[in-house]
Amino acid sequence: MPTQYQQLNITGRLANFARETGKKAGPFQGLYFNESDVYKWLEAAAYVFADTQDAALAHLVRDVVAKIVAVQQPDGYLNAYFIGEKTKLRWFDLKDKHELYCAGHLIQAAIAIDRCIGENTLLLAARRLGDLIVKTFGPSGAHSKGVPGHPEIEMALVELYRHTGDTRYLLQSTRFLENRGQGVIGGEEYYQDHLPFRALQRMYGHAVRAVYLNAGAADIFIENGDQSLLAALEAMWTHLSKYQVYVTGGIGSRRDGEAFGKDYELPSQDAYAETCAAIGKIFWSWRMLSITGDAKYADDIELTLYNAVLAGIGLEGTSYNYSNPLACDSMHRRQPWFAISCCPPNIARLLASITGYFYSTSDNEVWVHQYAAGTCALELLNGNTVNLQQQTNYPWDGNIRIQVNTEAKFSLNIRIPGWCDSGATLKVNGITWPEHIHPKSYCKIERQWSSGDVVELNLPMPARFMSANPGVSNLKGLVSIKRGPIIYCLESVDQEYADLDRIWLLNTPEFSLEDGQDVLEGMKIVLANGLVIETRESIEDDSLYAYKESSTPPSQTTRIAAIPYFAWGNRDYGNMRVWIRQI
Amino acid sequence: MPTQYQQLNITGRLANFARETGKKAGPFQGLYFNESDVYKWLEAAAYVFADTQDAALAHLVRDVVAKIVAVQQPDGYLNAYFIGEKTKLRWFDLKDKHELYCAGHLIQAAIAIDRCIGENTLLLAARRLGDLIVKTFGPSGAHSKGVPGHPEIEMALVELYRHTGDTRYLLQSTRFLENRGQGVIGGEEYYQDHLPFRALQRMYGHAVRAVYLNAGAADIFIENGDQSLLAALEAMWTHLSKYQVYVTGGIGSRRDGEAFGKDYELPSQDAYAETCAAIGKIFWSWRMLSITGDAKYADDIELTLYNAVLAGIGLEGTSYNYSNPLACDSMHRRQPWFAISCCPPNIARLLASITGYFYSTSDNEVWVHQYAAGTCALELLNGNTVNLQQQTNYPWDGNIRIQVNTEAKFSLNIRIPGWCDSGATLKVNGITWPEHIHPKSYCKIERQWSSGDVVELNLPMPARFMSANPGVSNLKGLVSIKRGPIIYCLESVDQEYADLDRIWLLNTPEFSLEDGQDVLEGMKIVLANGLVIETRESIEDDSLYAYKESSTPPSQTTRIAAIPYFAWGNRDYGNMRVWIRQI
Repeated sequence: MPTQYQQLNITGRLANFARETGKKAGPFQGLYFNESDVYKWLEAAAYVFADTQDAALAHLVRDVVAKIVAVQQPDGYLNAYFIGEKTKLRWFDLKDKHELYCAGHLIQAAIAIDRCIGENTLLLAARRLGDLIVKTFGPSGAHSKGVPGHPEIEMALVELYRHTGDTRYLLQSTRFLENRGQGVIGGEEYYQDHLPFRALQRMYGHAVRAVYLNAGAADIFIENGDQSLLAALEAMWTHLSKYQVYVTGGIGSRRDGEAFGKDYELPSQDAYAETCAAIGKIFWSWRMLSITGDAKYADDIELTLYNAVLAGIGLEGTSYNYSNPLACDSMHRRQPWFAISCCPPNIARLLASITGYFYSTSDNEVWVHQYAAGTCALELLNGNTVNLQQQTNYPWDGNIRIQVNTEAKFSLNIRIPGWCDSGATLKVNGITWPEHIHPKSYCKIERQWSSGDVVELNLPMPARFMSANPGVSNLKGLVSIKRGPIIYCLESVDQEYADLDRIWLLNTPEFSLEDGQDVLEGMKIVLANGLVIETRESIEDDSLYAYKESSTPPSQTTRIAAIPYFAWGNRDYGNMRVWIRQI
Repeated sequence: MPTQYQQLNITGRLANFARETGKKAGPFQGLYFNESDVYKWLEAAAYVFADTQDAALAHLVRDVVAKIVAVQQPDGYLNAYFIGEKTKLRWFDLKDKHELYCAGHLIQAAIAIDRCIGENTLLLAARRLGDLIVKTFGPSGAHSKGVPGHPEIEMALVELYRHTGDTRYLLQSTRFLENRGQGVIGGEEYYQDHLPFRALQRMYGHAVRAVYLNAGAADIFIENGDQSLLAALEAMWTHLSKYQVYVTGGIGSRRDGEAFGKDYELPSQDAYAETCAAIGKIFWSWRMLSITGDAKYADDIELTLYNAVLAGIGLEGTSYNYSNPLACDSMHRRQPWFAISCCPPNIARLLASITGYFYSTSDNEVWVHQYAAGTCALELLNGNTVNLQQQTNYPWDGNIRIQVNTEAKFSLNIRIPGWCDSGATLKVNGITWPEHIHPKSYCKIERQWSSGDVVELNLPMPARFMSANPGVSNLKGLVSIKRGPIIYCLESVDQEYADLDRIWLLNTPEFSLEDGQDVLEGMKIVLANGLVIETRESIEDDSLYAYKESSTPPSQTTRIAAIPYFAWGNRDYGNMRVWIRQI
């Protein structure tokens, strides 16, 4: 939080507000949607406050909120760019100017602050802005056919409805969704505007836009129960999982347009896989999980979080990746900030709210979706509070001990991850659970719980090879290493032979584990046997082609060390590969 | 010749001439530079006549020539497109409209007909057109700064000078070269117009344009001895060979712009490698060979001819490739003709004149550049005629017997190909040549020859692996098979396992040979040991990623059959690879 706040200051993102109230001179700084980073930071700060009760942070939040609300216009309009000399351009370019996107983030921040800090200054401003949006984009508004070029307002308005009970916000969110695909903003795939929402059967265009849109549509379904929306969402999620996702859970493979590619278009070196797209997919999968209770969505959240998202932030916690290649030969370093800096505060708000993705509740059931050491107090709809304690070194170890510290009758639904396709065992108070344990599902334990009852889940976690569908032509003959939910990678700094294209994994790798050292402390390193293949490196000429004698020793064995993919690029410069040749 | 003549007829290329003289009605057919195909066909027909004395072909040539000369304008202008209603557009778009390109091909055809058939009707027309070009583009002409957007006229004008002795044509060719790189036609790399010619140190832009330009510049150097031209040509040739050429000799790797890519940008599947670009490189290398006597240029002609060019024509001789990928997964078939059909008649004129690339002569020396069974009578500058007979099954066998059927003192320079890097032996009348035999050079045998003297050259020709410089990242860990000058490839139709990405060659391949059958009759097939690698093909699900168990048998051995690359795509549909994984 402090380093990002510094960046908001340094880069003029905060000054842009002060400028509008005459407190600072000079031109607007940076891009027209820069304020969205301020709102996302505020949202993250609110979540952090909920955990830490950090008074200094709350003070900072108050200060930033004051700057924001000071620029709200008499009619409720609030945006740091489209005021002053630019007032006349309001709502003029909905396709590309991100006004409703910024408004959405303002609303989400306002709700988070109200919920976590208990202060409603920004919420009042957000409601006035929301009311203006409803008036402007409602049936009799000046822009009744308006479509936001970058989805985000959809989720925000549904949440504002949930927080306030004002159905106008829900209806307006629905209206934005229904206006799409009519060509209002040009009908381009990039904007998911080439088809009406219900006709989408796969992911198209700009990846972040696409998953934000789907998360918003899922929110709308949750509130209005329109099954045709759910059908489109499920079709898209299924297609995405079969054809368009990286082994890390990352999405949006194409740099050009930050977009989804064709089916099976999943290049490694040129992977775009924007951090924000992975985060948006978690938003979407979380809503799908809430709707369906299908464990595949919890699996996806886990995979995406530990791999595609975590790779987006440095181990020191203050540097970020915008794109996340699966192979790299450049002098890669994460950056403290970007000109378009959507990813850093997006990681912040996801990680600061991550505990919210661990459990779900209903009238008298609890779902345990994710595993990590910690305690929780969960309020059921029937009014009972369930206290749980998880003890585990997950994801480095598959032993999870859940102690129930509540006397009550309820069902505890324990997720058996899909990655654990066999051997999972469950014990309740030391007695093996009598039913079959199905991977990628929840094991339902319904009983009268006594305080001190213990559920022990054991998930065998050997290192294993993953292979890709042969449709992904660039991955033929290659494998990646996965252990539990963690995808591993090779960095040249760990290998005896630095050229990763010369290293092939053996089919019989004799995997073993080692504890990570220094910045990798706490992680498990996977060791394996491989071959170093003789290549042209050994030919001392610069000719383009040369004979390769078959009398040359073909290869020598070598010990390979693989580190968690999310930890790549944190040490000496070197190359990286997730996918490795295998013999 | 007959099938191409048919295409010239069917596609309206001949009718376009008749149309202008009122003999046929209707609009101009096809693209504005279509007549260049007619001229190239005529040039090829003249060369064929020189070998065959085919009276029917000569009759056809006369008929086509009559059609062409009938449209020549009073001022000498001759073009089937820019006359009639388009007269006012003459010389209007030198950058893109190929007028001077067409004129160049007309001139080359005219010279070939005069030389081979002994008829000068088209030559007279070509001289009148050449005179108009000299007048229009000369120092006091209306277009004195003109630059041809597609080089070709440069070579043609130098040859017209050689054929007529009129130095104005040579000077005009030089003028076109000197006008380049001044931004006259926009200064784009695509047109080799971004730099003055002497500043070019590598190949840029459209590949065919680039090699035609260089062949023209080499012709100019041969006549005017301007060393600064030669320096640029040598720098470009060296850079091309080190960074921009396929193992087949093909060039112009990038489909976009039919262009040279960056250094080491040599994709296999997406290789463009236009047939015309390979042919143009032979034109250029031939001129470099004539200038320097350096055997590397003869090596390049051989490699490019047997691989990059021959792949451009079907084994039946009537179908063609425009681009020549080095890997293919599509239902590939050569085509009888194209809308832009530069390649078919270009192959025709190269193959019909191929004997012209076999020998060079000087005052009292003979150079034997290429090997194939045949006889020749070579006139030396000192007036002697040297009769030679080659007996060989080259390129399928490295034994070459050259019998001298002349009594004279002269030097016979025998090329030792660069591909034969050791073991070559030479005997003269059964006695081993006492000096060391250097690959990629000429062995000079100076003596008083008696009729019946025999030179025996033996070039060991084992099948061998080629590897690429590690700079070509997509070829790391891959090998190709080469035997003598022939590059081999795998077609799925010949393998036990059709998926070529599952086949890896062994480091100890135990190569053996087999005679080709059916359409491959006369060729040598290379057999080798390989592995069939277990891949996801064997996993019966459609998931994007799945565990790959290391208990699976990793591979099984298989016998692989490789065919000459030039013969690919002539049998059942299937996939093809030049570069294969190797363990």
